[in-house]
Amino acid sequence: MRVPLAELESTIARAFVRAGMPADKAGVAARVHAESSADGVESHGLGRVAAFASMLRAGTVKAEAAPRLVRAFGPLEVWDGALGSGVLNALHATDRATALAAKHGIGLVGMGNTHHWMRGGTYGWRAAESGFVLIAWTNTDGNMPPWGSVDRRIGNNPFVMAAPRAEGHLVLDMAMSQYSYGALETTRRRGERLPSFGGFSTDGAMTDDPALIEESGRLLPMGLWKGSGFSIMLDVLSAVLSEGRTTDEVDALGEGGCAGCSQVFIAVDPRHLGGIDAAQTVADRVADHVAAATPDESGRHPQAPGVGTARRRGASLRDGVEVDAEVWAVVQGLAGVEQIKA
Amino acid sequence: MRVPLAELESTIARAFVRAGMPADKAGVAARVHAESSADGVESHGLGRVAAFASMLRAGTVKAEAAPRLVRAFGPLEVWDGALGSGVLNALHATDRATALAAKHGIGLVGMGNTHHWMRGGTYGWRAAESGFVLIAWTNTDGNMPPWGSVDRRIGNNPFVMAAPRAEGHLVLDMAMSQYSYGALETTRRRGERLPSFGGFSTDGAMTDDPALIEESGRLLPMGLWKGSGFSIMLDVLSAVLSEGRTTDEVDALGEGGCAGCSQVFIAVDPRHLGGIDAAQTVADRVADHVAAATPDESGRHPQAPGVGTARRRGASLRDGVEVDAEVWAVVQGLAGVEQIKA
Repeated sequence: MRVPLAELESTIARAFVRAGMPADKAGVAARVHAESSADGVESHGLGRVAAFASMLRAGTVKAEAAPRLVRAFGPLEVWDGALGSGVLNALHATDRATALAAKHGIGLVGMGNTHHWMRGGTYGWRAAESGFVLIAWTNTDGNMPPWGSVDRRIGNNPFVMAAPRAEGHLVLDMAMSQYSYGALETTRRRGERLPSFGGFSTDGAMTDDPALIEESGRLLPMGLWKGSGFSIMLDVLSAVLSEGRTTDEVDALGEGGCAGCSQVFIAVDPRHLGGIDAAQTVADRVADHVAAATPDESGRHPQAPGVGTARRRGASLRDGVEVDAEVWAVVQGLAGVEQIKA
Repeated sequence: MRVPLAELESTIARAFVRAGMPADKAGVAARVHAESSADGVESHGLGRVAAFASMLRAGTVKAEAAPRLVRAFGPLEVWDGALGSGVLNALHATDRATALAAKHGIGLVGMGNTHHWMRGGTYGWRAAESGFVLIAWTNTDGNMPPWGSVDRRIGNNPFVMAAPRAEGHLVLDMAMSQYSYGALETTRRRGERLPSFGGFSTDGAMTDDPALIEESGRLLPMGLWKGSGFSIMLDVLSAVLSEGRTTDEVDALGEGGCAGCSQVFIAVDPRHLGGIDAAQTVADRVADHVAAATPDESGRHPQAPGVGTARRRGASLRDGVEVDAEVWAVVQGLAGVEQIKA
């Protein structure tokens, strides 16, 4: 079913307020969740509202916390997220990084002791919307084995790269696992196989059967050893640049849901290079070159990252945001909204 | 066969001098090639000497060129590589990025109009050796189809991340294709299959047969759509941040061998954060946590990026650098060195 974006946003905000979040913070966080759903990422939009509300209620996420400046040196800043909302902390970090970049050309913000930032793309879109290039990543709890191992000791550590463009920004939002646990679950429920190998079964065979991977917990790093190595470096740099926790230490904290994790936001201001127009021209050129490539046999269309997202967003604004009726009913319940029976 | 590192280096230097490079530049470039071989990356070490020498002779690489500062703004610098040696330009860019980071906390150098940097890890090791974090990447010519296409319109755009550590730095050096053309060739010559899918055959089936991939030219991006999207963003950011060419424009220049490509080097100085010791402690913690993970059935040992490289380097310094006898003979010939017949 489809719900207007404004209704989605206000309902989520009410759910967060009822879970103990101040109204102004709840409004901002709700907008981020609603926009993620509008962009087609329900798993980190409406789909995470109930879990986030219960973390607010449990006090795992500190509803009233504000990030605290730990260190500032020219274009570098380190913040302590004080275990507050990961979304609010990451928005703050993005805005600080772009403000530093506006002044110094480049800005780096490390945000330690924070929470799950939900959809990483949120921060890429936000920076690009103001004309900045953004590189950002987060570490997570240990949810994937490193290449050559069976222990879930590395995170899927989502990585974001964004560049501004007049005709819809380019935004890459990529986790280090080939598929998410959410994708495994959805595929299993449909009784389907993954489009390609997604992990190992308990006996060590690569498989596209989501149930076997859920059973073993052995998610496949994207690009096999490459995603494993990339995840490890992202973890090291997360902790070094935020003076925060490694994945190992997030696991040791033991709160779950990435509580206490570390994030990095690097913004560059093209106005201190060749200018915004030149940057957008480059992004246009590359996106157009990719889009004009001869399609293969798969029926997919080659496209630059973010182009599909912008298309889905347009449809959501026009026709309403596609939501899972069951999930929507739960969130309406959390918001204390009377549900209209179909 | 094994050759002492010093002999390898001096022989390569003579080959470069005879191809027209000034002796001081030849010495530096030769050291980089020799060290890549010592680290176990012969494909970009000794294996590229003949090709580089012939580009020097042809004037595709300008033997006497020096990079020229185009723009400087606080921690940002943009340089024009003047189509000089990609290795010398990238060393210069690394050193400028770390110098800027030492002053400002972070430094970003864009290097446009340059050449193939050979092994990307070279610059990661160099920065880490001086105690800096480095993130760097290059674009290339179009050598891989974007996901959903058959046209080679994106590059394999190697990406580097490095962090200092007392016991051997952590360095990731990762191309955007799952396998290189060099790996395809080596595997085919051995009559073997790749360890996993490496591309598509001309009829669009994913395959681990290197000959079928060489025939189609359809290399698999690492992580399928993920490596494709990452490559596209690296290309956009390469060109924006260096004010240089996109992959499309490198192809249009048509000199081959990545002539005219664009590179980015971002260094951070941990001395302006929690300090070098704290950064090394983080890197140690993560590397040890990964190394202590239970191995899987493959017989591989889980390890952080760069750990294997440091081990190979140690063996090369002790026992000499392993070289392909045929390739070594060619380079000795280019250097005008009389070869000792076995």
